Amino acid sequence: MADEENAYSFTTAATRHITLANLPPGGMLMWRGGRLPEVTLAYECWGELSSAADNAILIFTGLSPSAHAASSPQDQTPGWWEYMIGPGKAIDTERFFVVCANSLGGCYGSTGPSSINPETGQSYGAEFPDLTVEDIASSGYYLMRELGVEKIHAAVGSSMGGMSSIAYAMQYPGEIEFLISISAATRALPLTIALRSLQREIIRSDPAWNDGHYTDDNRPVSGMSLARKLGLVSYRAADEWNSKFDRSRLPPEKLTGKRFEREFEIENYLEYNAQKFVASFDPNSYLYLSRAMDWFDIAEHGASVSDGMSKLDVSKALVVGVTTDILFPSRQQREIADVMQDTGTDVDYVEIDSVNGHDAFLIDDQHFSPVVKKFLDESVA
Amino acid sequence: MADEENAYSFTTAATRHITLANLPPGGMLMWRGGRLPEVTLAYECWGELSSAADNAILIFTGLSPSAHAASSPQDQTPGWWEYMIGPGKAIDTERFFVVCANSLGGCYGSTGPSSINPETGQSYGAEFPDLTVEDIASSGYYLMRELGVEKIHAAVGSSMGGMSSIAYAMQYPGEIEFLISISAATRALPLTIALRSLQREIIRSDPAWNDGHYTDDNRPVSGMSLARKLGLVSYRAADEWNSKFDRSRLPPEKLTGKRFEREFEIENYLEYNAQKFVASFDPNSYLYLSRAMDWFDIAEHGASVSDGMSKLDVSKALVVGVTTDILFPSRQQREIADVMQDTGTDVDYVEIDSVNGHDAFLIDDQHFSPVVKKFLDESVA
Repeated sequence: MADEENAYSFTTAATRHITLANLPPGGMLMWRGGRLPEVTLAYECWGELSSAADNAILIFTGLSPSAHAASSPQDQTPGWWEYMIGPGKAIDTERFFVVCANSLGGCYGSTGPSSINPETGQSYGAEFPDLTVEDIASSGYYLMRELGVEKIHAAVGSSMGGMSSIAYAMQYPGEIEFLISISAATRALPLTIALRSLQREIIRSDPAWNDGHYTDDNRPVSGMSLARKLGLVSYRAADEWNSKFDRSRLPPEKLTGKRFEREFEIENYLEYNAQKFVASFDPNSYLYLSRAMDWFDIAEHGASVSDGMSKLDVSKALVVGVTTDILFPSRQQREIADVMQDTGTDVDYVEIDSVNGHDAFLIDDQHFSPVVKKFLDESVA
Repeated sequence: MADEENAYSFTTAATRHITLANLPPGGMLMWRGGRLPEVTLAYECWGELSSAADNAILIFTGLSPSAHAASSPQDQTPGWWEYMIGPGKAIDTERFFVVCANSLGGCYGSTGPSSINPETGQSYGAEFPDLTVEDIASSGYYLMRELGVEKIHAAVGSSMGGMSSIAYAMQYPGEIEFLISISAATRALPLTIALRSLQREIIRSDPAWNDGHYTDDNRPVSGMSLARKLGLVSYRAADEWNSKFDRSRLPPEKLTGKRFEREFEIENYLEYNAQKFVASFDPNSYLYLSRAMDWFDIAEHGASVSDGMSKLDVSKALVVGVTTDILFPSRQQREIADVMQDTGTDVDYVEIDSVNGHDAFLIDDQHFSPVVKKFLDESVA
């Protein structure tokens, strides 16, 4: 969900790498079977862990962000959630020890399909084991233990990250004190499955994908670009684009003159952002992470969504939705909050009226910061 | 906008072909320049033209339908608007002489990119002249004159067809008595341009497209299938699919076992419908018709949208929108009606609360028939 205001990079000067030493013998067992003999996570952190180790906040990302959620003395380039994290900000690094990892399965320093399988000496590619949101949550659990945290003060996640934070809370009951889920879902519904499935099929249809065995100098860049454009279309809302682009045309010097080539500014915007993404994101990571979201279903943690959610044992949860989100619509956010409440979790639900669609959490400082700040302030009151 | 309830076919036993003899010398001059030396239109008709030639209804189609809008004694297979057209139905063929043509630029019998250019003996392919909604409207004008109709009683169109019916009314003021526009737009907005541009780019990215010079035995079927799936996603609404598919999985015998292959019913639904479409639709026709919609802008008929719409000279208009349409949202339908009213056209606006999204007009007999019937009944009262 990068856009020009939120550039991701592979790793930064502030990125640390940790190879998890606390996995079970043989490696990390995956939720749907298979295992990873070795797991390295790229993470960044801000603030200091208290002596009681009771002030840690773990941030789970959406599909595409790196661990570089915010700047730090080690790397002053803005992070993808720069407005949210820092001294005196909503996620206050003078008060909290804040950790953000690149997702397991990602390509920004954490073990993923582009990593070398130590048992074969080859990169995993499409032989990476099935990846789920539950695995991403588990890798966060192992990471926090490695960092000396037994119980997380708060897990915070947006989009796929919101699913991950809920999965963490279900898988490790009582090990999160506070939970924040932004623009997530209890389970993927047909429209979002269709959109993501189509993005994956577009990548797989690029001959360069080659069943996942592409080479560095022949990656499925065309498929990735098209898939990313479809993502961008689904992340934003019509009215924002109406006011930003309307029907503006490209200046003549930007027209190629070829038939059916782009001629509207909106087409150029998508092209620019897609190219930026394609240059830095591994296609197989995209496929694995995208499908993990389709598979996520709280009902797999019990007899039903309610039954799964009843496993939660947190002091309080905050659920945030956005009015113009078409990918994870606000009614799905209300559903999360309702099910939490019905199964005994104390929950605040906030619906934000933003024009920025699913991407609002990346952009809309003005609406999001006060909501997150209030919740976290009260969590330590 | 085909779905399993609405299969199109190339031509039927009821399809007639007419080569327009009333074009200017040299052929049809196109709105953006270029010309077609010869224009053939495939059309079907129902009912009888009155001796005063004052009971004709012209139906403009969306991007993909054929002329076979309804069954007839010559061909009893159901048409794509079967519920709407027929004896005693909303568009009553006992009262009206009803005509539906395959769009100019289409591939179901009318002159389009797959037709032979009589001046070269080769098919036009990507050398077809720039096609606009205005050209589609003009071809309808020539057709009706050929059929002996000077003034149309009503022009009716949905989606692209709604744009065509408005274009007809602007281009030939006073030559339509009543106007019906369903799920159309005064001009394409960035989100729809983005979606259609992406569909076109997906087709053009298929190596088999070959800059429009594909051959019959090597057509860009993969690109067409993906583009059609994206279309289907945008034509429907989330809630309909939630109740129809939820998270149903395919039975084991339908799984291919290949990595990332489809496993949800919704993925299978898209595949089935895309394949049906790909088998019958010309890729270049798709590109030309799709772009015609991006280009359409009533403001090009004057100094502004209002100025363009002020050219209308009809007795009354009916504008219909659907609450769950994300492609041509209801606020765009209200805009059409408001601009008409502000510029002196008597207009009824009806917003239909249907779960079927943009495709509702193809499916939702119950909501659409009474609205169209009432308007047309009053038009002859």
